[in-house]
Amino acid sequence: MSIPIISLQRLPIYLNYLKSLDNKDKYISSGAIARALGMGEVLVRKDLAFTSAHGKSRTGYVTEELISALEEFLGCNKSVPAAIVGAGGLGCALLNYGGFKNYGINVVAAFDNDPKKVNISEKIYPESALKGEIERQKIKLAVICVPASAAQEVCDELIACGVTAILNFAPLLLKAPPQVSVRNIDVAANLAVLSSQIKEEL
Amino acid sequence: MSIPIISLQRLPIYLNYLKSLDNKDKYISSGAIARALGMGEVLVRKDLAFTSAHGKSRTGYVTEELISALEEFLGCNKSVPAAIVGAGGLGCALLNYGGFKNYGINVVAAFDNDPKKVNISEKIYPESALKGEIERQKIKLAVICVPASAAQEVCDELIACGVTAILNFAPLLLKAPPQVSVRNIDVAANLAVLSSQIKEEL
Repeated sequence: MSIPIISLQRLPIYLNYLKSLDNKDKYISSGAIARALGMGEVLVRKDLAFTSAHGKSRTGYVTEELISALEEFLGCNKSVPAAIVGAGGLGCALLNYGGFKNYGINVVAAFDNDPKKVNISEKIYPESALKGEIERQKIKLAVICVPASAAQEVCDELIACGVTAILNFAPLLLKAPPQVSVRNIDVAANLAVLSSQIKEEL
Repeated sequence: MSIPIISLQRLPIYLNYLKSLDNKDKYISSGAIARALGMGEVLVRKDLAFTSAHGKSRTGYVTEELISALEEFLGCNKSVPAAIVGAGGLGCALLNYGGFKNYGINVVAAFDNDPKKVNISEKIYPESALKGEIERQKIKLAVICVPASAAQEVCDELIACGVTAILNFAPLLLKAPPQVSVRNIDVAANLAVLSSQIKEEL
């Protein structure tokens, strides 16, 4: 069963909480985790059921086993290389973001067609180096942060270089073969949904 | 009925297409739109049904009515003020992003506790000005782009100032009263889902 993204987002929260405990008891219950994080116990139990950890009804989870199961599920011990195309404000923000390593993802390269961007960081390459670096570093995962007008062309090029999973921030629907996984984050559309939910007074 | 975000994301695409037509015919059919954009006709019809436009079975939509219905639904003629808290890479990228006006959203202010950030743009205010500016500009919509460790505090402060709709980029679950609408965009979690879907060869 595929984990819903809303559950996946909570797994690092459980992991960070468990790792932050100074004196770890041998066992920890879903109820104790739920209370500490201000969440519902059923929700915690359902989320943790996606991992390989087995909680017992009276004792709960073996704390170290639960930590290992979360780390394994999240791929914390892996290092999956990823690339960013477009090193504007968003691309650079993602390049410098530390949170990807929680999921075993290592952003190893960014590409930009503006030569000035290439000097900002040694991880930023000119766009002409895209094919060579993607193939050399065996990158299968990429993030598109270019304007909408360039996004389809970048998408096609990435797929031609062997990328099979793409996160797209450009506000358009990318065309990609069904074997390629594409997820879209349209920030403006998310803000528009909220705008329609504004209440003038609480 | 609330529109799914995936449909909402497509409405500006239809609108931009219709507005880009040089010689607009009086009528346009969902089939013609679908063919032009490489999409399914049923999908197009379902999306457009969220607006007030009425398509007829033989003639389709009155083109100008459909444009108006899309603009009205998307709030293109409104100007809803919005604020960004945290003017780091992501916050600045959003501050400079032109796509919000497609949805009638106007990012009027950003706040940061780093005095150096305040000089980057006249729209960036010190965090001490947050309460005053949010109230003065009657801002109800805000985007949180601060690190996870500061996000809950910022969230509480925004709500205390009258904000009722929040888009959160920090990777944690914000606690907010049920009357406040909160949407989360966790970039790392989205990338992690894709990472789990990587195929080594197509």
